[in-house]
Amino acid sequence: MTDLLIRNVRIVTGAGADAVIEGGVAVSGGIIEAVGKTPDRAQEVIDGQGMILAPGLVNTHCHAGDSLFRGLVENLPLEPWLQTVWKAEGAILNPETCRLGARLGFAELALGGVTSVIDMFWFPEQTVQAAAEVGLRVSCGGLFFDPSGMDGKTAADRPDDARAFFDRHPPSDFMRPGVFPHGAYTVGPDNLRLAAELAREHDAIFSIHASETAFERQDVLTRHGATPVRLLHELGALDERAVLAHCVHLDDEEIAILAQTGAAVAHNPLSNLKLASGFARIPDMLAAGVRVTLGTDGAISGNDLDMWLAMRLAATIHKAATGRADAVSTHEALRMATQAGAEAMGLGDRIGTIEVGKQADMILIDVSGPHAAPMFDPLTHLVYSAGRADVRHVFVAGEQIVRDRRLTRIDIAPTLEAVRALAPRIRAAIA
Amino acid sequence: MTDLLIRNVRIVTGAGADAVIEGGVAVSGGIIEAVGKTPDRAQEVIDGQGMILAPGLVNTHCHAGDSLFRGLVENLPLEPWLQTVWKAEGAILNPETCRLGARLGFAELALGGVTSVIDMFWFPEQTVQAAAEVGLRVSCGGLFFDPSGMDGKTAADRPDDARAFFDRHPPSDFMRPGVFPHGAYTVGPDNLRLAAELAREHDAIFSIHASETAFERQDVLTRHGATPVRLLHELGALDERAVLAHCVHLDDEEIAILAQTGAAVAHNPLSNLKLASGFARIPDMLAAGVRVTLGTDGAISGNDLDMWLAMRLAATIHKAATGRADAVSTHEALRMATQAGAEAMGLGDRIGTIEVGKQADMILIDVSGPHAAPMFDPLTHLVYSAGRADVRHVFVAGEQIVRDRRLTRIDIAPTLEAVRALAPRIRAAIA
Ligand SMILES: [Zn+2]
Ligand SMILES: [Zn+2]
Repeated sequence: MTDLLIRNVRIVTGAGADAVIEGGVAVSGGIIEAVGKTPDRAQEVIDGQGMILAPGLVNTHCHAGDSLFRGLVENLPLEPWLQTVWKAEGAILNPETCRLGARLGFAELALGGVTSVIDMFWFPEQTVQAAAEVGLRVSCGGLFFDPSGMDGKTAADRPDDARAFFDRHPPSDFMRPGVFPHGAYTVGPDNLRLAAELAREHDAIFSIHASETAFERQDVLTRHGATPVRLLHELGALDERAVLAHCVHLDDEEIAILAQTGAAVAHNPLSNLKLASGFARIPDMLAAGVRVTLGTDGAISGNDLDMWLAMRLAATIHKAATGRADAVSTHEALRMATQAGAEAMGLGDRIGTIEVGKQADMILIDVSGPHAAPMFDPLTHLVYSAGRADVRHVFVAGEQIVRDRRLTRIDIAPTLEAVRALAPRIRAAIA
Repeated sequence: MTDLLIRNVRIVTGAGADAVIEGGVAVSGGIIEAVGKTPDRAQEVIDGQGMILAPGLVNTHCHAGDSLFRGLVENLPLEPWLQTVWKAEGAILNPETCRLGARLGFAELALGGVTSVIDMFWFPEQTVQAAAEVGLRVSCGGLFFDPSGMDGKTAADRPDDARAFFDRHPPSDFMRPGVFPHGAYTVGPDNLRLAAELAREHDAIFSIHASETAFERQDVLTRHGATPVRLLHELGALDERAVLAHCVHLDDEEIAILAQTGAAVAHNPLSNLKLASGFARIPDMLAAGVRVTLGTDGAISGNDLDMWLAMRLAATIHKAATGRADAVSTHEALRMATQAGAEAMGLGDRIGTIEVGKQADMILIDVSGPHAAPMFDPLTHLVYSAGRADVRHVFVAGEQIVRDRRLTRIDIAPTLEAVRALAPRIRAAIA
């Protein structure tokens, strides 16, 4: 018998430009076995009346642990902002606080409809554990960072640390080990090359901040004779395993390099706005065939981890920035937040759309309120009207990790209490 | 005895740059009688633990009735978009549907923490009634629009209609009659001058779309030999009663004119992004002393009426547009959405901040969830992390119009049902 049936629901499959189906979704063994017309009965039946069913969202750039520092450092551009952030991180971060911060961030993500996340942070073992506690799919792994790190280690320790992480974490559909060099301005060419080799060797994600600000781009050009994207290309780091966060400042040739190599760009619109980094050339990237995905960045820059806001910004800011009201279509915005993100995680054949044979990563969105009436097109509604608080149920591989807006695997109250108890120490760290 | 006491709460007063008070707010006869230290007892006591108390939001540019057309027309720039919108409006709008649409829009606004709204729409009598049904303060009044209007009237009818509205609606703290010429591209100079005279004569709001797009600005310049702002200035329309929606395209001299005359600008960031209108020069306006307020515009352009999104966009997009991470401070963003809006409605001495002697327009924001932890500064939280769904209670002049996220004055279900029943006719209108 079918395990789970969600019936009587509007389904935005995410599989085609306008694919909306009315009917049901049947799930067995975590796999979608029918979409539209389904069996009548199942172990568990949910009535989807007044809801939209959509693919779980994929956040391709996050630092969940940084949620501990939400709202701590405000109104500074990236470089002085980073100095203060690093001061706070240095004083506060250890395995225990990283676990706490990751759990906080992942709880927020799950409640907001995110089912998979690429997360770059210190003590990635804690990231793995926190994701499992909440029930998210995660990609994380060894950081590369040449200055002395928040984990007390240095550039020389990074390669072995990254290898050890791979040894401890064979890839699965739920845990995607990767390598995470912080940026071309904080990691030298030798370690960048080595990180890229490790990624290839393990067929793993290689994710890095790149061309976030004009300052960074010029800085890398001055130091290494090439812009971040060109440098990464020369070092052999760009292929379909690469996920480059930001890419706000690119010339036409760099866009062509990204398109040719198959490297993905994780667009983080809120962070780019708030840190005054600028407007990434997303319409040009999409036109060139670059694989654009979506991220929230950390709550230390954007103050929350809201993929709905990211989607709405991705669909609107480039219209104003280019003067073209058709820049970034509704479908492109949704695709960035779902299928394209799944592909960047190497899971494009397993998650990212609502299709038979895929794993059941699904969210149910409440459309009973005044801001959802009338609704001429559910896809338009998802991108332009829905919000995080409309997410009612969340499933990962058929397991319900959010039920009626509450996490099912953990009680988040003790985490919130511990975070609030830590806040005075965090504030004191930058005093 | 005190009517209402909200105790044990964090109060963002909105009155100073960083004014946050811990304590209570006491209300009697609709007036705030104490802030911080309060009487111990009251007829009604609400425990504010886990909440922020802030001034009710003021939406200074809205077309609530247009919520009927939410998501109907997508991916077009302003001018062709308007042609389709007007086609739908022409087929659907009458007093009954305008009342329905206004009720839908005002319900969404109230649930999202808005307590006052300047609303420009057809059949303004219906707007008055719908606002009273939900419990919002409203400014509306006679439209000026030279082409044949959705109400079947023409340019010649407008002045008498506007006068009749003033006759029927003496100003009160809850209903602010005004004149609403649609724009300098749709209303000729004679009627614009006359509308401005009516506003002066009745000491009433004069609100108009102005310089929304580069096309409009050039069009008005070509036709009348002056840009919209200069034309309005020449016609005597600019003083502290004027509320100019958008002002995306202004030169330095126009900014100086707005600052000198005291005219307010209603900034609608989401609408400007989505219709590709551009980035208003908000930091320059603030520096010049222009009174900048905030609006959602209609849900036909922005798809919802979310003042939290408007606030977050106002606080972030100008950072990226100017490259300055300190452009538009947290306090300035909140001020646009509260005190500055109250002033634009001519109610600056009565609402807009949480201060003794003012009317109790207050909202209570839930900060118990993961996206609100930790919280180093409640003001930062309101502007950068809070959202419409966090609004739990809303008071207008001490009367609770939203309790635990539900309207108290009306049951919204029949309205939603009627809107959904009308949707097929709306869709057919543009087919
Ligand atoms: Zn980042
Ligand atoms: Zn408007």
